[in-house]
Amino acid sequence: MKKAYLAGPEVFLADAVDIARAKQALCAAYGFAGLAPLDGEVTASGGPDALAGAIYDKNVRMIRGSDLVIANLTPFRGLVMDPGTAFEIGFACALGLPVFGYANIEANHFRRVADAGPLRPRPGRPEVREDTTGLAVEDFGLFENLMIDVPIRRVAGAVETGTVPPERLYGDLSVFERCLARAAATLASG
Amino acid sequence: MKKAYLAGPEVFLADAVDIARAKQALCAAYGFAGLAPLDGEVTASGGPDALAGAIYDKNVRMIRGSDLVIANLTPFRGLVMDPGTAFEIGFACALGLPVFGYANIEANHFRRVADAGPLRPRPGRPEVREDTTGLAVEDFGLFENLMIDVPIRRVAGAVETGTVPPERLYGDLSVFERCLARAAATLASG
Repeated sequence: MKKAYLAGPEVFLADAVDIARAKQALCAAYGFAGLAPLDGEVTASGGPDALAGAIYDKNVRMIRGSDLVIANLTPFRGLVMDPGTAFEIGFACALGLPVFGYANIEANHFRRVADAGPLRPRPGRPEVREDTTGLAVEDFGLFENLMIDVPIRRVAGAVETGTVPPERLYGDLSVFERCLARAAATLASG
Repeated sequence: MKKAYLAGPEVFLADAVDIARAKQALCAAYGFAGLAPLDGEVTASGGPDALAGAIYDKNVRMIRGSDLVIANLTPFRGLVMDPGTAFEIGFACALGLPVFGYANIEANHFRRVADAGPLRPRPGRPEVREDTTGLAVEDFGLFENLMIDVPIRRVAGAVETGTVPPERLYGDLSVFERCLARAAATLASG
């Protein structure tokens, strides 16, 4: 049974353990063993630095022991995804692991930035749109930064997106389950 | 001469090429060859998907050809860093490359979230602070998610932070130069 590392910011919710167990049950239904990075299970003496180091080591060890990653790309404290999850996707890609991604909103990166504030054409290059800080807004039709979307699209075709009740923005598993189905179909046909 | 991959969201600025050249000149002054991921140098026929794929392949190839990474962790479109840069840090860590990080603000992750809105104690676990969406706020005293800070701190001791003029939030290189000095001293003593 292939092992799927379950990356995402829902580990920060109060019911993170319940969500992880529910994700693992869904994984089993699709033929995967789900590995959940539950920071709360780690203990270390020596204060916050030692604890942070122990969590890091455990997560990296779990990724190295996985066959694939399923990552929650839902925006986190702003318009972009959780950087811990982005790190884990990059780590997995360097190891050659297939990465699948999902998000509990539909709007892609360009749409999210456009909805958050006015865009303007870049002086001298009007085909480029800038946000109010002068940063170009990537307009590839991708859900996230291309470093995240490209490896996912190459494996899985697309990031799985959907709409969930707002109070379950991080913990709802309906889009996660569609992503699992996609992973199972992709890896069966590969 | 060691090759340093220069990761960061300043590639999205209008003067990205000038900033990259300035970074490379500083790298040379500290004994490094700076490799800059300038998306604009990539062309591909076949539309945005092909272009995104070509940029991804070029960046990954540059990281694989590097000896270290120097990453700009300045918050991007919200309270957290650019996920493309986070991906590249993870990719580099899986390859065993040393990663150095800097940011053009001082406030760490906990402080940024606390400044952005009210925190509340988690019901039943008052030592945990939640933001308004119910996500726990990491309180390790780290600048970013621990998956980003831990590998940087192990190599470099700390993320280099500082304050710059707001209109140069992404492009100012004074903190970058301090990070370069740290990298040079670290790798010379290693």
